[in-house]
Amino acid sequence: MASLQNVDMGISKPLPHPLTQLSITEAHVARDVILQLHDKSVLDFRTISLEEPPKAQLQPFLDAEAAGTLTAGFPRPARLARISYDVVSENKVFKFYESTVDVSTGKLVGQELIDPAHHAPLTLGEFDHLVSAVWASPLFKETIAEFNLPEGFEIVVEPWPYGGPDEDEDSARYFQGLCFAQDTRNGNPDSNFYAYPLPLIPVMDARTREIVRIDRLATGGKEDGLAKGTHSANILEHCKGAEYVPELLANGTRQDLKPLNVSQPEGPSFTVTDESLVEWQKWRFRVGFNHREGATIHDVRYDGRSVMYRLSISEMTVPYADARAPFQRKQAFDFGDGGAGTCANNLELGCDCLGHIKYFNATNTTADGTVTVSPNVVCLHEEDNGIGWKHTNWRTGRAVVTRNRELVVQFIITLANYEYIFAYKFDQSGGMMVETRATGIVSVVNIDPGKTSVYGNVVSPGALAQNHQHIFAVRMDPAIDGSENTVLIEESHPVPFSPEHNPAGNFYSIQQTPITTSQGLDAAPQHNRVVKIVNKNKRNPISGKPVGYKFTPAPTQKLLAQPGSIQARRAQFTNHHVWVTKYRDGELYAAGNYTMQSRDEVGGVADAAKRGDAVEDTDLVVWNVFGLTHNPRVEDWPVMPVEIHQLHIKPADFFSANPSIDVPSNKNLASKLVETKESCCQDTTIKGKL
Amino acid sequence: MASLQNVDMGISKPLPHPLTQLSITEAHVARDVILQLHDKSVLDFRTISLEEPPKAQLQPFLDAEAAGTLTAGFPRPARLARISYDVVSENKVFKFYESTVDVSTGKLVGQELIDPAHHAPLTLGEFDHLVSAVWASPLFKETIAEFNLPEGFEIVVEPWPYGGPDEDEDSARYFQGLCFAQDTRNGNPDSNFYAYPLPLIPVMDARTREIVRIDRLATGGKEDGLAKGTHSANILEHCKGAEYVPELLANGTRQDLKPLNVSQPEGPSFTVTDESLVEWQKWRFRVGFNHREGATIHDVRYDGRSVMYRLSISEMTVPYADARAPFQRKQAFDFGDGGAGTCANNLELGCDCLGHIKYFNATNTTADGTVTVSPNVVCLHEEDNGIGWKHTNWRTGRAVVTRNRELVVQFIITLANYEYIFAYKFDQSGGMMVETRATGIVSVVNIDPGKTSVYGNVVSPGALAQNHQHIFAVRMDPAIDGSENTVLIEESHPVPFSPEHNPAGNFYSIQQTPITTSQGLDAAPQHNRVVKIVNKNKRNPISGKPVGYKFTPAPTQKLLAQPGSIQARRAQFTNHHVWVTKYRDGELYAAGNYTMQSRDEVGGVADAAKRGDAVEDTDLVVWNVFGLTHNPRVEDWPVMPVEIHQLHIKPADFFSANPSIDVPSNKNLASKLVETKESCCQDTTIKGKL
Repeated sequence: MASLQNVDMGISKPLPHPLTQLSITEAHVARDVILQLHDKSVLDFRTISLEEPPKAQLQPFLDAEAAGTLTAGFPRPARLARISYDVVSENKVFKFYESTVDVSTGKLVGQELIDPAHHAPLTLGEFDHLVSAVWASPLFKETIAEFNLPEGFEIVVEPWPYGGPDEDEDSARYFQGLCFAQDTRNGNPDSNFYAYPLPLIPVMDARTREIVRIDRLATGGKEDGLAKGTHSANILEHCKGAEYVPELLANGTRQDLKPLNVSQPEGPSFTVTDESLVEWQKWRFRVGFNHREGATIHDVRYDGRSVMYRLSISEMTVPYADARAPFQRKQAFDFGDGGAGTCANNLELGCDCLGHIKYFNATNTTADGTVTVSPNVVCLHEEDNGIGWKHTNWRTGRAVVTRNRELVVQFIITLANYEYIFAYKFDQSGGMMVETRATGIVSVVNIDPGKTSVYGNVVSPGALAQNHQHIFAVRMDPAIDGSENTVLIEESHPVPFSPEHNPAGNFYSIQQTPITTSQGLDAAPQHNRVVKIVNKNKRNPISGKPVGYKFTPAPTQKLLAQPGSIQARRAQFTNHHVWVTKYRDGELYAAGNYTMQSRDEVGGVADAAKRGDAVEDTDLVVWNVFGLTHNPRVEDWPVMPVEIHQLHIKPADFFSANPSIDVPSNKNLASKLVETKESCCQDTTIKGKL
Repeated sequence: MASLQNVDMGISKPLPHPLTQLSITEAHVARDVILQLHDKSVLDFRTISLEEPPKAQLQPFLDAEAAGTLTAGFPRPARLARISYDVVSENKVFKFYESTVDVSTGKLVGQELIDPAHHAPLTLGEFDHLVSAVWASPLFKETIAEFNLPEGFEIVVEPWPYGGPDEDEDSARYFQGLCFAQDTRNGNPDSNFYAYPLPLIPVMDARTREIVRIDRLATGGKEDGLAKGTHSANILEHCKGAEYVPELLANGTRQDLKPLNVSQPEGPSFTVTDESLVEWQKWRFRVGFNHREGATIHDVRYDGRSVMYRLSISEMTVPYADARAPFQRKQAFDFGDGGAGTCANNLELGCDCLGHIKYFNATNTTADGTVTVSPNVVCLHEEDNGIGWKHTNWRTGRAVVTRNRELVVQFIITLANYEYIFAYKFDQSGGMMVETRATGIVSVVNIDPGKTSVYGNVVSPGALAQNHQHIFAVRMDPAIDGSENTVLIEESHPVPFSPEHNPAGNFYSIQQTPITTSQGLDAAPQHNRVVKIVNKNKRNPISGKPVGYKFTPAPTQKLLAQPGSIQARRAQFTNHHVWVTKYRDGELYAAGNYTMQSRDEVGGVADAAKRGDAVEDTDLVVWNVFGLTHNPRVEDWPVMPVEIHQLHIKPADFFSANPSIDVPSNKNLASKLVETKESCCQDTTIKGKL
């Protein structure tokens, strides 16, 4: 009955905004409904989170809200929770369900038994099972006994998803554990164990929670091809520690870096109200958060005009290029397998950003359905990004220069060894940016002394950092002055000499091609290919062109795995830099809903594009795929400096002038002059000058 | 005799560093030597600046300096001034000379009469001549009389270089004046006259300083082709003001932007000594400055190891794509024609950067050879660029995160309507970056009411912003652990399925091709093409690979003008994204020494590459060419938001670990938490949480 009381409480209070995350109470209402539904059976909860309302219900609500015409009686989308869970029967058969519950009424709205061909995303609980299973495994004990570990070294097991199984494998749910040894002699639990890789991967059957197999890893070099077993029993003899926590650095940290502070004496320029509503410099949007995508941006409006219905980082895959089994399975889908929200860092003041920081919280779901707060998973702050615009009138010497202030929504995820820093940035010129920073520790395997490999780079003695790619997908659900939008591919092309059109040869022409049916297409920098998202029904009063936003797709290298390989089959979204699809509720994930242990991408953006929907002058979605081919440098060890990629989404004849023209250009009075003493040979006639 | 005294003074004092700019005294010594040399003739001085020593003399000096073995007796390169000037004879024949003088001895070292086929770079004095010539021109008076200018509007003449003459033109030295009208009714000299373009371009013969011709400009739209004379006499009737100086903004500046200050309570982390020597975070380099290139970076060393002998922005060309004569001549070479140093802004504290700023000065040369100080043309400061690296140990929850501090050497140039912000940035991970920001006011011409054009975009009523490109060349003179360097082109390629090499299809191979002879080559993002500059004689102790630095050439669109067009002929450097040439003293400029009014690129990087020099394991130079095809948006008006391009030059197995691993990770205590009041529907059980 507890749940019913909560429901009453909920009803007795004004309802939260449809995009506000579920409160703990609401989540527990949903849990209790599911518990009652599956009375007597054992349940394993995976996630309980807000099910975003269908656009047909949410859009009118948001429009009314923006217009200030939202009355108490205005139809509200139902408050729905999506509950992902397993039902465990006597004979240890797991059934994976996804159900939806109306948390204001406490009623079950939908229940779906997921096709056993698909695997649910992992939970951190399953990682714990793997680690326990390894310790409990006699097989692992006897295998590890083959190796002589140095005095004071202890085994560390790093749980990974199993990856895409080979053709001939069964489809039971597996987990694999990458094994390392930690030097415990310094007594520091954060001593970097990745410097000591072991050539073993225990494999657990998630159903029985038992280690069913231990894969052996090759440790050879160029000369050894795919061969295994070339290593000695003294597997760590040639490895060398590589610490990154300051107290373990041999020479400590550098002392010559003086502090740099960002001070905002009058506080930040943004406001956050109603849990998730952010307003800043004519921008207005909602910050959402879910287990799968982490932070999401909703209902972006500038000066009252709609720009974007939803902006999110949809997926990322990290395939490894080591040809030696079982590394063909080494391919993470960080969003679909692990969940960017589930793996989000709890951020700390003064560490992850400077200035005045507003944090947002999220929730964790434990196996028994208890939902708890995960604090500070998203931060919001302002940054100075250099000069915004400048002009000097050389006649009068009058210079007008403005700063380029940006508003940053940032979250950071950790998946085992790797970190990713994701940021949505808004500027004062009507521009949006999605920034990704790859950092963390590159994935290494043991390599025999003195050898080098075609599969990667030796970044530390005995540690081979394997070549790999990171391929990201950003999902843009535009609303350029409304949802009837069209994608134009705009290119600049040379024009042959001709007396009528190009007498001197300096003319080039701009060519526009509308995308009429859903499809994937590629970057074309040689043609200066730009993707414009326009509203053909609204013309710019100055230029007469349709109002729009644009981005230039980066021509980054696509997936290198062979077409037909499991790595390629399960990452079809990487086949193009840009996808244009017709909007459908719930079609959010570039690699499909279920990437965990998949052999094929199902229901991803490639399938959506295949429908061949008409996408002209309608509600469409634009996806941008970009990546980084990461052949590690020694400088990436032990923690790699950030590799940065930026997607800029800029207005193109959306406004009738530069929106930042009214940014104040007053002097920053806090800046200080650095005087350096004149050197001996200073010209006395111009002291201090030259 | 004055000069001789100065010389004595010079000798009596320790000599300045060979890379230190000429002092006023030294410059005047040079001037006086030239005046005596050309006794009795009329001289027009253009520039007097330091002639950098030959590398054969400078390199040993720098090495000794870095090694601390620089004794008083160590051979010093001569202190040379390069003087560029015209000798004007009775019959107004101009002879253009470039001479060099040893300013310590007061002796002429070299004198070169420049082939009259070449034109000297412009001086701002010549711009003044054009403006006076226009006012004095009866032809201009009578032409302008054809137009009815509104009450209170005054003509403004914007001097431009003439551009590349057509085949059939003579090669006299010309200047052209773009004409606008300024609304003087507001009494503000900085009222934006670019909003009122007039369809006239007076042309001056620089020899006679007379207006010899007035070119008429087309003002038509798509429907008018190349036709001229479609405009009415009320040429400004349909134009509209577009102000950018704050006091003229109709609604003033926005009031909701709170200050953001960068405070450095302990001051900056860098030191500047001996005029030009900068030391910061294991980096050590010299800042140079000259009329042509603006700020240059010399003798870059990290932790005592040489990385770069010289780094500079070599050239930029801005060709316009309007097919209507005389716009085929609208093509600026901002470095070769105007001089980035000559056009450098005098920067102001609190305007062009935040924090603690060190400024560097330069000099101006006037026609009579007087050299004066131009203050604050370069600024040096630190910036925070977000997170540098981060790793969280999910087992212990311990997060280690460092900031990405950068040292910035910045200068800003104004050429008529346009601004460029150039920055050399150094980071703590051994990386260097060259950043360009394009801003300022796009170049517009008058367009008839209600018309649109294939030559550009209407950004303001009556103002057509013409389509154009900006193509930059950065010159890297590397010294990777010494001057014997080699360029490797590294690509990542798919590998076909095969049981021996790629059984699962996930393997890709890294292919390296050394560049053996000087040549141009292009970006290839589809192969992840990376340009590596290595020293084959030094191996990385960890990876066993040659030590090196790398950059990824951006595959930006190349010049769109037809091959064989004057625009293309004079900008051969734009034919490739990357050039590799053998080092030669004085070979600094991508488009050649003399771009002013050129029809062909002579002695530029394309010619240097044609030599087919052997460039393996030797002293070589690497050039990176990138650009921006700028088809203006309405949002670029009246002053455009910065368009940013970054060239990242990163270590690749140069170090034996991440150089920034010892950057402190302590909390920034100045950061502040932003609390927002809970909304009504806050869940009471977790107040302040969700």
